[in-house]
Amino acid sequence: MARILHIDSSPRGDRSHSRRMTREFVEQWKQNHPTDTVTYRDVGRNPLPHVDEPWIAGAFTPLEQRTPELQAALSISDRLVDELLAADIYVIGVPVYNFSVPSGFKAYIDQIVRVGRTFDFEPENSENPYKPLVLGKKMFIITARGGSEFGVGERNEKMNHQDPFLRTVFGFIGITDITFIHIEKDEQGEQKLAESIAFARLQIAQLVEN
Amino acid sequence: MARILHIDSSPRGDRSHSRRMTREFVEQWKQNHPTDTVTYRDVGRNPLPHVDEPWIAGAFTPLEQRTPELQAALSISDRLVDELLAADIYVIGVPVYNFSVPSGFKAYIDQIVRVGRTFDFEPENSENPYKPLVLGKKMFIITARGGSEFGVGERNEKMNHQDPFLRTVFGFIGITDITFIHIEKDEQGEQKLAESIAFARLQIAQLVEN
Repeated sequence: MARILHIDSSPRGDRSHSRRMTREFVEQWKQNHPTDTVTYRDVGRNPLPHVDEPWIAGAFTPLEQRTPELQAALSISDRLVDELLAADIYVIGVPVYNFSVPSGFKAYIDQIVRVGRTFDFEPENSENPYKPLVLGKKMFIITARGGSEFGVGERNEKMNHQDPFLRTVFGFIGITDITFIHIEKDEQGEQKLAESIAFARLQIAQLVEN
Repeated sequence: MARILHIDSSPRGDRSHSRRMTREFVEQWKQNHPTDTVTYRDVGRNPLPHVDEPWIAGAFTPLEQRTPELQAALSISDRLVDELLAADIYVIGVPVYNFSVPSGFKAYIDQIVRVGRTFDFEPENSENPYKPLVLGKKMFIITARGGSEFGVGERNEKMNHQDPFLRTVFGFIGITDITFIHIEKDEQGEQKLAESIAFARLQIAQLVEN
């Protein structure tokens, strides 16, 4: 029995491709793994605050020295980190906004990358002071982007600051087993988009069997 | 006489390195170009909202067909775009948060990348449907990051999703004349940081003379 954390980050509702595909993924996963549980988090329609100065002061103050004010500044982050650590499998929908993730999903990332909770900082280890703490997890990320040819060696690779960034930041906290599914070509007409969605569905059908 | 738009994006106040250095840059620039004017925008301490579904619906609806509700959804964006287009020179402070820009600065970017205002989309030109509209500008970006060796060919290049991303997204709307100044090594001790700040000051002293 695994615990799934299902996250959507598109600001759009029914018109969101990433949102529709994460729903299909989780529904099919549940059919194949009926005892798995699902927690749902929607950071697209329920936007998170940006990290602010009290947040930073709180995060870098040892737990036992935090004032009630600093504790309060971290309360959303604490809840999100608890939820992240409690899950075994992540299914995340993320559109590409301006070559990267939407600001709302970056706000989520800024909330969950927490010293002492999702990574440790050991300054005495000058070669490698960072130690990831979110280990043994599996992540599926469904992206949606207007164009195409953003893969390694492809024409637009250098303009892709989404999935390489997501691999870096989730890898930093320890999540290295990441599978991407890309919905693309939304700007290239309905036929191209339909083909991309059909291919994504094939990938999902294979992935949920494991 | 040039118009300068000075933007800070650090959520921190006096403790922010990028904020201190953009202030020094603008003060010295003003000494060298006393007739230039300065507009100040602080997206770090006065956070911007994330783009939402009414924003997207508004941006993709022709101006003359926008309902009052859709117009309202774009009002912040309109103001930021007006301000961006009115300036000739940008001086921007951006810390690195989790290998990229803070969510608050991504929110700024998501607000100013606007079809019909900062870029045009011409689907009939299938080779290159995007046309940048923010032309003839000059940008100075002062970044602040804990580590170092994030440059091209350096050890941490692949973990740098900040300045390559900023070049892509500002280049997309037409801003290609960008100079970066990096404050770094904050995590490597006071001496290393002081050296980095001293080097940044040398760069600034040269840049403001032009």
